Amino acid sequence: MTQLCDLDTPAALVDTGRLQRNIDRMQQRMNALGVKFRPHVKTSKCVNVVQAQLAAGAQGITVSTLKEAEQFFAAGITDILYAVGIVPGKLPQVLALRRHGCDLKIITDSVAGAQAIAAFGQTHGESFEVWIEVDVDGHRSGIPPEGEALLLVGSALQEGGMRLGGVMAHAGSSYDFDDPVVLRNLAEQERERSVRAAERLRQAGLSCPMVSVGSTPTALSAEHLQGVTEFRAGVYAFFDLVMHNVGVCTMQDIALSVLTTVIGHQEDKGWAIVDAGWMAMSRDRGTQKQKRDFGYGQVCNEAGEPIPGYLLGSTNQEHGIVCLAEGTDHNIAARFPIGTRLRILPNHACATAAQHPQYQAILPNGEVQAWPRFYGW
Amino acid sequence: MTQLCDLDTPAALVDTGRLQRNIDRMQQRMNALGVKFRPHVKTSKCVNVVQAQLAAGAQGITVSTLKEAEQFFAAGITDILYAVGIVPGKLPQVLALRRHGCDLKIITDSVAGAQAIAAFGQTHGESFEVWIEVDVDGHRSGIPPEGEALLLVGSALQEGGMRLGGVMAHAGSSYDFDDPVVLRNLAEQERERSVRAAERLRQAGLSCPMVSVGSTPTALSAEHLQGVTEFRAGVYAFFDLVMHNVGVCTMQDIALSVLTTVIGHQEDKGWAIVDAGWMAMSRDRGTQKQKRDFGYGQVCNEAGEPIPGYLLGSTNQEHGIVCLAEGTDHNIAARFPIGTRLRILPNHACATAAQHPQYQAILPNGEVQAWPRFYGW
Repeated sequence: MTQLCDLDTPAALVDTGRLQRNIDRMQQRMNALGVKFRPHVKTSKCVNVVQAQLAAGAQGITVSTLKEAEQFFAAGITDILYAVGIVPGKLPQVLALRRHGCDLKIITDSVAGAQAIAAFGQTHGESFEVWIEVDVDGHRSGIPPEGEALLLVGSALQEGGMRLGGVMAHAGSSYDFDDPVVLRNLAEQERERSVRAAERLRQAGLSCPMVSVGSTPTALSAEHLQGVTEFRAGVYAFFDLVMHNVGVCTMQDIALSVLTTVIGHQEDKGWAIVDAGWMAMSRDRGTQKQKRDFGYGQVCNEAGEPIPGYLLGSTNQEHGIVCLAEGTDHNIAARFPIGTRLRILPNHACATAAQHPQYQAILPNGEVQAWPRFYGW
Repeated sequence: MTQLCDLDTPAALVDTGRLQRNIDRMQQRMNALGVKFRPHVKTSKCVNVVQAQLAAGAQGITVSTLKEAEQFFAAGITDILYAVGIVPGKLPQVLALRRHGCDLKIITDSVAGAQAIAAFGQTHGESFEVWIEVDVDGHRSGIPPEGEALLLVGSALQEGGMRLGGVMAHAGSSYDFDDPVVLRNLAEQERERSVRAAERLRQAGLSCPMVSVGSTPTALSAEHLQGVTEFRAGVYAFFDLVMHNVGVCTMQDIALSVLTTVIGHQEDKGWAIVDAGWMAMSRDRGTQKQKRDFGYGQVCNEAGEPIPGYLLGSTNQEHGIVCLAEGTDHNIAARFPIGTRLRILPNHACATAAQHPQYQAILPNGEVQAWPRFYGW
């Protein structure tokens, strides 16, 4: 039986107890709010994690790449939403997946996009299911729920013989806040603008069965989801320090960490040097602009208990520098001798996980299982 | 024959003409300076690139992980320096490589480290070749060339039956400067402090045949390398925007770029949205603190010619926002219609390359070859 002490470093650890609690918490919340839940699998890219999400009650998945669609379809999942605006060049790959039986849905937010989908679909005799991306907070893509563009896109799809499956939105700006009232209002804005878009399409005689919204902060802040049919969220499965700062999880909820070993010191500077650099943590500095900057991560002991005040202060490719957030620990070589194993909680789980070919999943009995994950496009 | 137009996006492109010129430039410089050159393969992690470096005259390689050592040893390379301080827990892996015929050298910068290596070596009847890491600029690891610690580490190794192979240093702070005079002085400091450390060891009756120094900026700034036996550098093979800002390459030298497609717009904001997000570019914002901030990268047309003023201004996981560095291009949807293919020059080649399972190498005749690269530990 492999245990934590057998692992080489650096390694991406998953605390499966925390993972399951995070999955259950979100699913129960979505059940209580009366919507289906379609987890975003871009966070884990791991069949073991997604199977736990489906077992808890998730219906379908969201993907950020067609490679995710291919991999999870190969694992037996058919109900898949590709939640990045499609470009014509990727339609042959979408078509191939659909012809093999994958119920893959795509999105667009422009008339040009809708027309290109319709033209390709007609040429190949395929009625693609397309959802329209709605802009609910100005942070990235999507069409405003008001205005003509929405109806023009809907018409271009429906008249082009495509199936208009619904609208979808992502209140990505929710990551920028930490006030529960602001987050609750943003969740309501995400809901209201998405539902408004769906109603306008329906009033115009266009089909719009699904209203899909979501982000982890709004999922955990919404008071009601009237008119919404499904919710999407991804990072909640692992959580991270950014979500801790947003206020939707505690440090004890964070299920992903990086196991590392002390390889040296610069005692006069109060540095312990570890073998987790930015390659193991990612370059994500998502907490830099938040109320509490964790550098490249919060230092914990090997058992995963945070050591207050100690951060991964800076990184090179395979070197990390553990130090006090404030002040200098001139005793750091004695505190963390060479060979000491620590865990680092990440700023952003999606980014840190992506650096690792596999997770080391720690089961409740202490056994460690390697869970593969994939990357690339 | 696969060509650029056949590639899906995002994809990591390597301009092999630029790559070869970068490799030749560095090798010729090292030849002229009279030192051996041991390229750092952490940048590319790609056998094709490393074979080109060896063909140009490189002698041995530098690695940042034992996985790199294993992979390149499997590809037939035996002279390998593992340039991250060893921890006792990794010695079994080092031993296995050496027993299979790999001439793997390890480094340490502490008496505790030296003693642990000696104890493990004695137990297993192996005389490890160990180099002592010297601190030449206070930026990370290493022992000062002056003081007792250097001699104590040397003695611990030699008396413990290990082979003291040399000293090594890396002036990593060179990335923080952009003044040729400062860089030349730093290169001289790197050289002088490393040579001084070697001479002190020799004067104390300790063996120290090799004096190994290196970073890409100091490699291209040093005036002479008296007393140095070999140089190490990595990012020079690809170069990047950070090196452009340091002043050691031009934008036309950058051999790595990310091919991407426009997937949508927010015209009122002057945004074109592309399918290269931080997953394809990495989260590296290395130019943020430099004299010119390139956001997440410089936008080029599909042929690789920079489009002045356009940056990848911000990113999400699979979305990037192309915009003007200053001002708003309200005509951006007409300038870059949906389906337009662009290339993005990266801030930091080591970080961007690490996000991709393979390179798409563009040969001089326009043919594109997939060159695999690996990741993980």
